[in-house]
Amino acid sequence: MNYQAVLEDISKAVRPLAGQGKLADYIPALANVNPDKYAVCLNSIDGHMYSVGDAGERFSLQSISKVFSLAMCLSIKGEGLWKRVGKEPSGTAFNSLVQLEAEHGLPRNPFINAGAIVLADVLLTSLADPEENFLSFVRELCGSGTVGYNLDVARSERENGYLNAAIANLLKYHKKIECDVEEVLAFYFKMCSLEMNCKELARAFLAFANHNEKFCYSGISLTSSQVKRINAVMQTCGFYDEAGEFSYLVGLPGKSGVGGGIAAIYPRRYSVAVWSPRLNSKGNSVMGMKTLELLTTETMESIF
Amino acid sequence: MNYQAVLEDISKAVRPLAGQGKLADYIPALANVNPDKYAVCLNSIDGHMYSVGDAGERFSLQSISKVFSLAMCLSIKGEGLWKRVGKEPSGTAFNSLVQLEAEHGLPRNPFINAGAIVLADVLLTSLADPEENFLSFVRELCGSGTVGYNLDVARSERENGYLNAAIANLLKYHKKIECDVEEVLAFYFKMCSLEMNCKELARAFLAFANHNEKFCYSGISLTSSQVKRINAVMQTCGFYDEAGEFSYLVGLPGKSGVGGGIAAIYPRRYSVAVWSPRLNSKGNSVMGMKTLELLTTETMESIF
Amino acid sequence: MNYQAVLEDISKAVRPLAGQGKLADYIPALANVNPDKYAVCLNSIDGHMYSVGDAGERFSLQSISKVFSLAMCLSIKGEGLWKRVGKEPSGTAFNSLVQLEAEHGLPRNPFINAGAIVLADVLLTSLADPEENFLSFVRELCGSGTVGYNLDVARSERENGYLNAAIANLLKYHKKIECDVEEVLAFYFKMCSLEMNCKELARAFLAFANHNEKFCYSGISLTSSQVKRINAVMQTCGFYDEAGEFSYLVGLPGKSGVGGGIAAIYPRRYSVAVWSPRLNSKGNSVMGMKTLELLTTETMESIF
Amino acid sequence: MNYQAVLEDISKAVRPLAGQGKLADYIPALANVNPDKYAVCLNSIDGHMYSVGDAGERFSLQSISKVFSLAMCLSIKGEGLWKRVGKEPSGTAFNSLVQLEAEHGLPRNPFINAGAIVLADVLLTSLADPEENFLSFVRELCGSGTVGYNLDVARSERENGYLNAAIANLLKYHKKIECDVEEVLAFYFKMCSLEMNCKELARAFLAFANHNEKFCYSGISLTSSQVKRINAVMQTCGFYDEAGEFSYLVGLPGKSGVGGGIAAIYPRRYSVAVWSPRLNSKGNSVMGMKTLELLTTETMESIF
Repeated sequence: MNYQAVLEDISKAVRPLAGQGKLADYIPALANVNPDKYAVCLNSIDGHMYSVGDAGERFSLQSISKVFSLAMCLSIKGEGLWKRVGKEPSGTAFNSLVQLEAEHGLPRNPFINAGAIVLADVLLTSLADPEENFLSFVRELCGSGTVGYNLDVARSERENGYLNAAIANLLKYHKKIECDVEEVLAFYFKMCSLEMNCKELARAFLAFANHNEKFCYSGISLTSSQVKRINAVMQTCGFYDEAGEFSYLVGLPGKSGVGGGIAAIYPRRYSVAVWSPRLNSKGNSVMGMKTLELLTTETMESIF
Repeated sequence: MNYQAVLEDISKAVRPLAGQGKLADYIPALANVNPDKYAVCLNSIDGHMYSVGDAGERFSLQSISKVFSLAMCLSIKGEGLWKRVGKEPSGTAFNSLVQLEAEHGLPRNPFINAGAIVLADVLLTSLADPEENFLSFVRELCGSGTVGYNLDVARSERENGYLNAAIANLLKYHKKIECDVEEVLAFYFKMCSLEMNCKELARAFLAFANHNEKFCYSGISLTSSQVKRINAVMQTCGFYDEAGEFSYLVGLPGKSGVGGGIAAIYPRRYSVAVWSPRLNSKGNSVMGMKTLELLTTETMESIF
Repeated sequence: MNYQAVLEDISKAVRPLAGQGKLADYIPALANVNPDKYAVCLNSIDGHMYSVGDAGERFSLQSISKVFSLAMCLSIKGEGLWKRVGKEPSGTAFNSLVQLEAEHGLPRNPFINAGAIVLADVLLTSLADPEENFLSFVRELCGSGTVGYNLDVARSERENGYLNAAIANLLKYHKKIECDVEEVLAFYFKMCSLEMNCKELARAFLAFANHNEKFCYSGISLTSSQVKRINAVMQTCGFYDEAGEFSYLVGLPGKSGVGGGIAAIYPRRYSVAVWSPRLNSKGNSVMGMKTLELLTTETMESIF
Repeated sequence: MNYQAVLEDISKAVRPLAGQGKLADYIPALANVNPDKYAVCLNSIDGHMYSVGDAGERFSLQSISKVFSLAMCLSIKGEGLWKRVGKEPSGTAFNSLVQLEAEHGLPRNPFINAGAIVLADVLLTSLADPEENFLSFVRELCGSGTVGYNLDVARSERENGYLNAAIANLLKYHKKIECDVEEVLAFYFKMCSLEMNCKELARAFLAFANHNEKFCYSGISLTSSQVKRINAVMQTCGFYDEAGEFSYLVGLPGKSGVGGGIAAIYPRRYSVAVWSPRLNSKGNSVMGMKTLELLTTETMESIF
């Protein structure tokens, strides 16, 4: 399939949406991004790369990074991981405390904030040098040794992260995290501050699309079945309380972040990363969602 | 693939689970089913049928019938249907009133009871002869003119259906259903009382797996895109509050019912129906879930 | 104390509020009441009666009638009544289904709708002729043989009472009511449709203020301790989710209804009834609340 | 009335309950208290004091101290205080996050933890030397210059106070507290760590019972109406989710703490303090509750 032409068509088709949505504005580092940026990059498993727009410009991955920490945790803990976190869609906003309290502190899935904070705790208690180990893993996954944390973003998140601090304290109260609350929050925000460009992000997600090749990066290895299961979790839980909508319109497993990025995969075909900073009311990129909807519609390809 | 051998292997492998789980017992008609029944039937899109066990014995479809009413409603109303019902996973039990009240009576998705009651109202207000039209549609879909309602089950459900009556009254209070409460409940319970055997059920779902062939049965037609979208809704919402678990373990869109049946599809490959009446605590068939997990594991085939 | 002068002063002082608030409009019979009616009547335990305004005009008691059914149930069942219904303030709106479901169908207190529906069920299963027995009791309590149900109001409530029907069905599902759902609802709405004027209502409540005299009316008798306990329940639960506000501003046990009436008592001193049909957003009479606030403020008398 | 004889009778009558209930055990300082302690002290407004048991031994006031901080805040802010905190009973446990999130961070009343944390913030932003000022106020109120904080208890509470830290962070997220989260928590826990004996506690509460005398202590003054309103808040909100039960059984405004103390008042008659460390499942002293129930039953005196 001539994906380059498809992506170029789509990039024109989504232009009318250019002014819709709002930047994440809860920290200055995100609020100051150029809202008009747009990039998309698709990597096919047969080795081709197609891209349009600012695909070489890095942005804040935010919640997309949770896919990487889930991969590490599943590699380390195996199925035992699911004693620490559920895998059901939450049916509520990503940051809900209500559900967490109702379920005695067991996070509904690894992609809501509570779940990802538990993942941070798992990594902190399992790895020799968590910050370095996480970085090595994602660098090898995306094929770039210069990918890194944005310390300004991480610091700024922590200073304004009262809701996440509430969540982490509630988890600690229910004995769902072992480490010190501040230490877990610091690592959680650091992972969220990871920056990649669309080319790097698409390459990083290619490993989840390509079951033929062994998943093994920087000592983190997953079986083919484990990779599929991560994809399944992305499918049901990857888009906050818009998981059903994304599944319905796009039909691919994926994960979004409030930095405006979305990464998705078509198993055994391709991975795709898109970036556009303006978000809809659910916290998902307006043009990013539309780009992926058009991609599966025009190519007539989806997992369904 | 030699699916017959696969199904036979699986039917042996699941035997150790034979005594686990409990029959739905809220109405006599379901409580009196032989709990040891087991059947599985797979229809490939290239026209072969494979089956093991009591695949010719009919059972109560219950919530599986909601897929058929969704197909009819989507054909009739198009995308406008989603003003009447959401398409997000509910994150709570299938019969929760809490979420319904919190969201002012708009059901979270068409497969929770509240959503399916709204579908019943849509059909009642749109069709000339709803009971007959629904029956004609499902008979053509499954290729059997003898498939029908079980009036004893329908009556018994209504007599004991206080929770569904509460839901329907709450929907009426929020002006989410147009018809009379009793009329909607009667039709809802009638659709749930539909009976098929695994061969008929697999055949009925083949239409959702096979995008190449036009979906048109008894005047109800869907585009290829609409069929995919129904599959997407099954994927995220088809298993009550175990949708994530099913997606994780099985990796196929599907729908279960408290009669012990599950129907699932592998798009562009096959449909599969399984029946075993003992249910886990979430209301899904214990051996049915395991059968489908083994099917995708052994064949190494899943949408992820 | 010269209560007549106090009431006259207050009736002038509250006039600026005359246009505030809205009539209950969910049934025609309530929506058609003259919104500008105002009446107040105070009965002291030493036998004097003081009144201002339309104190001889009857209005729909609605939830105020729940005090009478509580008195009957407590007389019949004694402390065992509290196995059927709680006595804690609800902290939510009077008609909430959320709390009821969360607490498996046990109503929080006898004055929210769910609780009063359970009271109706208790009376139906305990009395020889519930409708007549209830009427005899309230007639003797208020000293008027012409007080009665308004059958139009009762019928109209039932026809529009989808939320109460949802509540009653949920109670039945949780096995908290014994009788048929329709029968319970019919009796519940009939009790709510009771009509009195302020003179009758103040007289009826005098029995709750006057511990010196034995409480015994039409065969329903309560000990002094039981009367006090009914007063305590009024204090904490009598004003929906404004119980704290009423306690804070007025400082008397009382009960309001959406017909615009409020009855309150000062133990060992007086009972007072006020009527003004315009309601605030919580369903309590605007001028009624203010009248009672001024009464305890001006007389410097409250239970605190 | 011969209250001394009444208290002595009651102290015997409650003995059979001696082993019931459990000590608060979430911090060592509370878990190590002698569980068999029992004391009661009653101060009549005509100047007599009656006591039984260990009435000279100090214990941790915990939530009872919230009455003192409410008095200070109401004196400082007047009715404007209620923009910062509600005055409705919560209907849920004292430490619920669910209600707080549902109501966007506005605490339901000043006696649940969230509300008392807001009071701490109000005092921190209003007073020159909050810790000293609070101490001066309570010392003058109880007539003892040696009453003070228990710094071990305060420190221990903070170290284990994950749930309160979650609450404070959620309040900060909703912009309901102005000061630094840690600072507010430290002051909150310090106030809770206040220690008094029953004689001091009864004396401190006498000021709330005695409307004839001006309420003015260490510069904190309240009108008679304000004192009554604090009593009203105690009545509806003073016993967590057992406020209705206490009102029903005892019929006096009061406040309990997990240290096993309860203080209550009979307006214009007396104040009473009781201490027994074993708590029921709602966090209220078993023998304390019974003592007060018997007190109002035997004397036939209650506000109702």
